[in-house]
Amino acid sequence: MSAPDRDAAVRLDAADPLARFRDRFDIPDPGLIYLDGNSLGRPPTSALDRLTATARDEWARGLVRSWDRWIDVPVRAGDLLGTALLGARPGEVVLGDQTSVNLFKLAWAALDARPGRDVIVTDATNFPSDRYVLGGIAAARAGEVRTIEAHPVEGPQPSDVAALLDEHVALVSLSHAGFKSGALADMAAITSLAHEKGALTLWDLSHSAGAVPVDLTGTGADLAVGCTYKYLNGGPGAPAFLYVRRELQETLQQPIHGWFGHRAMFDFGPAYDPAPDIRRFTIGTPPILAMAAAEEGIRVSADAGIEAIRAKSLAQTQMLVELFDARLAALGFTLGSPRNPARRGGHVSLHHASAEPISEQLVARAVVTDFRPPDAIRIAPAPLYTRFVDVWDAVEKLAS
Amino acid sequence: MSAPDRDAAVRLDAADPLARFRDRFDIPDPGLIYLDGNSLGRPPTSALDRLTATARDEWARGLVRSWDRWIDVPVRAGDLLGTALLGARPGEVVLGDQTSVNLFKLAWAALDARPGRDVIVTDATNFPSDRYVLGGIAAARAGEVRTIEAHPVEGPQPSDVAALLDEHVALVSLSHAGFKSGALADMAAITSLAHEKGALTLWDLSHSAGAVPVDLTGTGADLAVGCTYKYLNGGPGAPAFLYVRRELQETLQQPIHGWFGHRAMFDFGPAYDPAPDIRRFTIGTPPILAMAAAEEGIRVSADAGIEAIRAKSLAQTQMLVELFDARLAALGFTLGSPRNPARRGGHVSLHHASAEPISEQLVARAVVTDFRPPDAIRIAPAPLYTRFVDVWDAVEKLAS
Repeated sequence: MSAPDRDAAVRLDAADPLARFRDRFDIPDPGLIYLDGNSLGRPPTSALDRLTATARDEWARGLVRSWDRWIDVPVRAGDLLGTALLGARPGEVVLGDQTSVNLFKLAWAALDARPGRDVIVTDATNFPSDRYVLGGIAAARAGEVRTIEAHPVEGPQPSDVAALLDEHVALVSLSHAGFKSGALADMAAITSLAHEKGALTLWDLSHSAGAVPVDLTGTGADLAVGCTYKYLNGGPGAPAFLYVRRELQETLQQPIHGWFGHRAMFDFGPAYDPAPDIRRFTIGTPPILAMAAAEEGIRVSADAGIEAIRAKSLAQTQMLVELFDARLAALGFTLGSPRNPARRGGHVSLHHASAEPISEQLVARAVVTDFRPPDAIRIAPAPLYTRFVDVWDAVEKLAS
Repeated sequence: MSAPDRDAAVRLDAADPLARFRDRFDIPDPGLIYLDGNSLGRPPTSALDRLTATARDEWARGLVRSWDRWIDVPVRAGDLLGTALLGARPGEVVLGDQTSVNLFKLAWAALDARPGRDVIVTDATNFPSDRYVLGGIAAARAGEVRTIEAHPVEGPQPSDVAALLDEHVALVSLSHAGFKSGALADMAAITSLAHEKGALTLWDLSHSAGAVPVDLTGTGADLAVGCTYKYLNGGPGAPAFLYVRRELQETLQQPIHGWFGHRAMFDFGPAYDPAPDIRRFTIGTPPILAMAAAEEGIRVSADAGIEAIRAKSLAQTQMLVELFDARLAALGFTLGSPRNPARRGGHVSLHHASAEPISEQLVARAVVTDFRPPDAIRIAPAPLYTRFVDVWDAVEKLAS
């Protein structure tokens, strides 16, 4: 199969139904090819405008009175994200805290909900911070983490999980898309296996939310967390989100009992009484400025539609794979992401012994990718603002 | 003693060395008397400008490359706050997370550091969310919270704490300034009592940071947390802070093990190895947009100087007390804050059976105070932007 030439990329851009979405982003440096949207997405113009309005109108002018309109943002933005992009039902997703804090809360709650079981299953390709959080919980509870030595490219498989499941396992916690390879775990199959053995599942969607259709309801997933600053373009360090399947909400309780999770927070009563709904998984005063920007980031992806995003993403990562075969494989690069499109996430990893200096040279040539030690370059063509010619030109510069 | 008249207030404003600081705030509605800065402070112009620059230059233009400048903000802003306003030494304060999350982390760490002890002492006038967090920890660890039934106006006294201390107490956790009365707890005396019995102290500074001099080093306090959106004017839901005395940092470990607390976070190693310094008490990716605004908020207070802030604050709350005696006591109001200036925080509480409708009528007359159920009106003359005539005029409207 011959590699696509640049004219093919130009034609794909001309036919791209999402092309107009690039205009919804603030791109002050259009000559820059930005392929690191899986680390920090570009700002939607609407997010910048909303941030300004929230600060200069709602904060400066409305002052404390603006809480009337702010108080619902975590649940409202969570519903938009959950229903449009994650396959959740209303009232199952809420924004707030950092991903690691949300992971801590939900993993702890899951272990409490499975008394007599003290094992968490995760995998060696999971994001290190997730592994640290789960390890910390296991240590605090005198429990244990069992770690799958997953394939570095293909990620954890259902059979890997099955091999570690037994009646001691309370929770299986994996990333939906691997942070390095981008490999998609089979959420439905793994959840089904976990449920057969009486365990719950907790998914980190940080690298899949906004890039890949997620079907939390259909797969039967119990719990999920993720960030909004990657494909959701919510801003640096934007608030994270969490998902709790509706049927589990009243039986799960997270350990950090803050007033925003109280059934009647403004009663200022002496005892904690958790809200009956998703709010019980929140803690304290939400970061309104950051959350306002994040809501707009989510909205752009929701407007585009996750199926259209996925279609373009697959076309772009497929182009990357074909260009790798034609031009990069002979230059010492190896492919660090699945060839099977159904198992490929939103980015492609390439490995090379000189990945770090290559990555730095690319920046000097106005191509931003992402180096991950020891030898990976992650290339993420975020579909909402990346053109096919950007992908083609980036590989051209990489090859040269 | 006769009550001050309005001319006296005008003269105090003319002589006020902090008067020019009002110009550093964005006040689009100068006719509004805003006395709720202990709930949400007004925005400094520099915070709004920094927010814009961070979003439109650093995020939009710098994109992921801006992390080079962002990564140090939590510690840098923490040092500014700690050294200028909290009596801490460099490397003892860091910004991040919400107050409740920081309280959870440090209280948990404190209990781990006192094996064999499972009691937390707090008081009934402490902010309810703090009580919920401490209660949640006690429940998770099969421990116990002992609650001082503190005087509602004067707050918890050293003798109250002493009465509950024994060899089972691991931690004494109180608010430095009571959220309702504003009463200041005697941090030095209570810390000394706790240390005599082998317990640690953890202070919530949310209602004192930026309003009252705090001497974390001099009092021997072990741990502290607080928010930056009240007197520090950091914005709605701005990042919280935490303090850990330098000598304790290597022996305390918090339970939420995130990558930002790792000794070598960018090595992406499989095991959590906590940083040797204050960073070990952080968790995940910090909220950069919100933190940028908060740093500027802190800077305004640091520029003014906490002694000058306190002097003006005491003059204004003293005026409130005198006006209460002269005009409000006869109208069914009672004073809910200490008369002793040394024990008074940055705000004054008044109680009235009709507090809620009175508070609403004040808003309609362009005076924003803060209603706290069942019968309290909190009045906070934040010194950086509140004039003496504002205080006088507010009482005039309240009395009428």
